[in-house]
Amino acid sequence: MFEGPVQRLIDELSRLPGIGSKSAQRLAFHILAIEKPDALRLAAAINDMRDQVTLCERCFNVAAGELCSICRDQRRDDSVVCVVERPQDIVVVERTQEYRGGYHVLGGSLSPINGVGPGQLRFDELRARLQTEGIEELIVATNPTVEGDATAMYIAREFKPLGLRVTRLASGLPVGGDLDYADELTLGRALAGRSEL
Amino acid sequence: MFEGPVQRLIDELSRLPGIGSKSAQRLAFHILAIEKPDALRLAAAINDMRDQVTLCERCFNVAAGELCSICRDQRRDDSVVCVVERPQDIVVVERTQEYRGGYHVLGGSLSPINGVGPGQLRFDELRARLQTEGIEELIVATNPTVEGDATAMYIAREFKPLGLRVTRLASGLPVGGDLDYADELTLGRALAGRSEL
Repeated sequence: MFEGPVQRLIDELSRLPGIGSKSAQRLAFHILAIEKPDALRLAAAINDMRDQVTLCERCFNVAAGELCSICRDQRRDDSVVCVVERPQDIVVVERTQEYRGGYHVLGGSLSPINGVGPGQLRFDELRARLQTEGIEELIVATNPTVEGDATAMYIAREFKPLGLRVTRLASGLPVGGDLDYADELTLGRALAGRSEL
Repeated sequence: MFEGPVQRLIDELSRLPGIGSKSAQRLAFHILAIEKPDALRLAAAINDMRDQVTLCERCFNVAAGELCSICRDQRRDDSVVCVVERPQDIVVVERTQEYRGGYHVLGGSLSPINGVGPGQLRFDELRARLQTEGIEELIVATNPTVEGDATAMYIAREFKPLGLRVTRLASGLPVGGDLDYADELTLGRALAGRSEL
């Protein structure tokens, strides 16, 4: 219906997650209406990212070179590794400013129903790191979901026998939350993980 | 926080309407995770659209050349012109498959509060078309909003004295709608515009 190049952009935008055909159309006409340099800068940002960004050879975080900025940082504590599902989870942990160790990105969580078994995640790479780096503790920061919990259990079973500490982020009430609005699963976890005052 | 090229793409995506920083982050990581040719095709679609798409010299619809596909179409009825606010409105009218005339895109609607007066819209270009083309009727298809109505009134006042028919799209109940859910303004319009059975 639209002129070829407009329709092609709408089609490409529609492929993005959470963008329906109506939003894609609105975005395409926005990109058509803004100043040309602004539009070209968006396209260049996509190209640049795909050209320049790779995965860190050590922890599989996004990286602009062989190693990511965290693995390049000499001041980080190499004896602790936080295991996360996806690169974007690293940024969330970093924002707490409470953690100074390294990371390991699994690339997802165990989900037999979606065909994701241990072979699809980066467990072999983690095992290799445990053999060469002086890692003493794995902090499992997978999501508090069925898949994330299963992945955490798998990590504990596989790597605890190697003689290192394996811990999991606490589940419980969100800070600032209201007990009234807590679901029973979260409240159950908060009870089980209660701490001495 | 993210590696430079990733953060730059997140920043560019955040500028798009309706895309917050969280959505921008999700989109950027999606674009990072998909196959490289798919990501580059999105960037190319943006570049191609901005390189190839211009505004039709006659009706200001989006066009891949000097004239848009509708103005190039010899089978369209040149005696009727549908006046719309934006190029995307043309597609909506075309979808009805009830209209075979031409179009004129104003580029917005009169809105003194936003600094849009008659000088900011393409009324002079419409006047020029009325002098050179054998136009007999203007169908005003601006939005049924305060601004769209004001624009329609302005068009009637300016162009009716030139001896042509100026009509406005009917306002009323949407087909398949429920009388219970109609707002009073729409119902009022439906009453005023009632037709003989």
